[in-house]
Amino acid sequence: MVDYTGIERVRELVTQTGTASFIEALAEEIEADFRRWQEFDKSPRHAMHSPVGVIELMPISDGRLYSFKYVNGHPKNTSQGLLTVTAFGVLAEVDTGYPILLSELTLTTALRTAAMSALAARWMARRECRSMALIGNGAQSEFQAIGFHHLLGIRELRLYDVDPAATTKLERNLAALRLPGLRVLRCASTAEAVRGADIVTTVTADKRNATILTPEMIEPGMHLNAVGGDCPGKTELHADILRRPDARVVVEYEQQSRIEGEVQQMPADFPVIEFAEVLAGRATGRADEREVTIFDSVGFALEDFSALRYLHRLHRSARGARTTIDLVPELENPKDLFTLIGGAPAASRELPRRASA
Amino acid sequence: MVDYTGIERVRELVTQTGTASFIEALAEEIEADFRRWQEFDKSPRHAMHSPVGVIELMPISDGRLYSFKYVNGHPKNTSQGLLTVTAFGVLAEVDTGYPILLSELTLTTALRTAAMSALAARWMARRECRSMALIGNGAQSEFQAIGFHHLLGIRELRLYDVDPAATTKLERNLAALRLPGLRVLRCASTAEAVRGADIVTTVTADKRNATILTPEMIEPGMHLNAVGGDCPGKTELHADILRRPDARVVVEYEQQSRIEGEVQQMPADFPVIEFAEVLAGRATGRADEREVTIFDSVGFALEDFSALRYLHRLHRSARGARTTIDLVPELENPKDLFTLIGGAPAASRELPRRASA
Repeated sequence: MVDYTGIERVRELVTQTGTASFIEALAEEIEADFRRWQEFDKSPRHAMHSPVGVIELMPISDGRLYSFKYVNGHPKNTSQGLLTVTAFGVLAEVDTGYPILLSELTLTTALRTAAMSALAARWMARRECRSMALIGNGAQSEFQAIGFHHLLGIRELRLYDVDPAATTKLERNLAALRLPGLRVLRCASTAEAVRGADIVTTVTADKRNATILTPEMIEPGMHLNAVGGDCPGKTELHADILRRPDARVVVEYEQQSRIEGEVQQMPADFPVIEFAEVLAGRATGRADEREVTIFDSVGFALEDFSALRYLHRLHRSARGARTTIDLVPELENPKDLFTLIGGAPAASRELPRRASA
Repeated sequence: MVDYTGIERVRELVTQTGTASFIEALAEEIEADFRRWQEFDKSPRHAMHSPVGVIELMPISDGRLYSFKYVNGHPKNTSQGLLTVTAFGVLAEVDTGYPILLSELTLTTALRTAAMSALAARWMARRECRSMALIGNGAQSEFQAIGFHHLLGIRELRLYDVDPAATTKLERNLAALRLPGLRVLRCASTAEAVRGADIVTTVTADKRNATILTPEMIEPGMHLNAVGGDCPGKTELHADILRRPDARVVVEYEQQSRIEGEVQQMPADFPVIEFAEVLAGRATGRADEREVTIFDSVGFALEDFSALRYLHRLHRSARGARTTIDLVPELENPKDLFTLIGGAPAASRELPRRASA
């Protein structure tokens, strides 16, 4: 039997752990894995595009465990009451090839993305960050808010979304959370939200080359956490922001980000730094207080690998039912797969009937 | 909720339908899909190799439905009581990106492989085929036997495996099935099994460049159904068999077979025919009674796509419980993913505690 963590179980595990602690633990797992970057067998994700969206598979392995995530991106889904992004994934043992965990990853992707964003900001943002602009107030926004409040000490959130109902929803959810010391401001435009912010997080869904952030909005010393631009033809930053002489761009995995990230707008020799290089001390995440640092996040398979391993450990140790599913056969004789259907009397009765038909 | 067909449900569906009829229906589905070959977005599978095996992802889409299969190949698994090959897969809607079916595919892969083998043989083997050599008597062998008995009219099966226990198991299972008119012969060697056979099916598991069939075994007019050679470094035929002037090689998907099939042994310009070309009438599967036809089968994503769609239809129409799993969230407001964990009182209680810790 394969362990199974569906929506109900992940909800239970997150609630038991606490959302902020869950994000913090994920950030630690992800950091530990990025520190052994060379051990991973990496490849850009496999994407199939249609006129309305994309479906992607994201495999990775460290030689001991293997994982993949299935994830879609369909910006127009919300108009029919469906999520823009849904995901699930599997953790497997490399030595046997057997899957050991199947998990929902829709909720988990939002949690791990917030963890990755906060982790990168810890290495890239200025030391004392108090205010963050949050542009795009949809499905991922609460997770980003909690992550940055808990891990970066953000105490002022400046919200903007083209859809006012999304901002209202985010305000309501944040109010219910009562995050200590957090002030939430609703802004009338992206420019107003960004003005004076230490960190700017963009988590918008539109699949086009958008310019959510334009050059005149950007102030020296800002850290930009650009989350929403994550597939070919889907960007959030005006290219001139990347071209600033004082800009520093960090990506997760260069080969994938050149295709999918904000840097898809730039020539192939545009300088980027891989996050693992920063952790390894071979590059810096920020050289001085006035640099504009940009985490050009697209989401990499390693983050899901870390999240699946963490979920699996929690699933096995936490309270509540440890659900499993019969995804893989269990046989007395592994060469006798047929026993699953051939042993039944029905199977030996039906064949002559069919053959004479 | 996502439909779920695990081992128990697939066993129930196959038993209700009858194994031979199930294989026949799969062959029809697969043929129909190969006839619209141009409509599919195809790519070679994504493989991650380790010293002991391989884990692969096999995605495909026709623009309306998307599917992928996860499959491993670990020849040494049987020594620890595990299967060489396990698999599962998902069917999804391209328009929304939502998964609609998660299914076991270990049993189903054996069934669809037998269906594909029999389908190819119908277009490639001589008209009156009575005897088949079956080399490799492991997990897939019963399915091949049933498929060829039912769809090709095979009435003599000549068995050989390096592991005598595997042959004993196959004999026992075939005896229990009482396939009408079928004579089963146990042979002392591959050469003895192959001698005089109309069709030779090889389904061996060893991951190396093996020469299960050597040139002197091959007789004019034979059809070779080479199933086991299906990844880089894993072949079953001596290259000189492919080099015979009277040999005709048909593959599923040229781009993948050049990497994984028997033809990985041959230069890049070695002539192969894609099976879809045969169905479309642009190529022939056999030119005359004396040609040696070779179906260099590696298994292509389209076959799993057909199988998943068929399983989904059966699952929704057949008797028995229509199991579902909570793999994807259902939300009143799709932009309010956080409601899944944030609405609970526990979530608003825990955060202040964590923040003050």
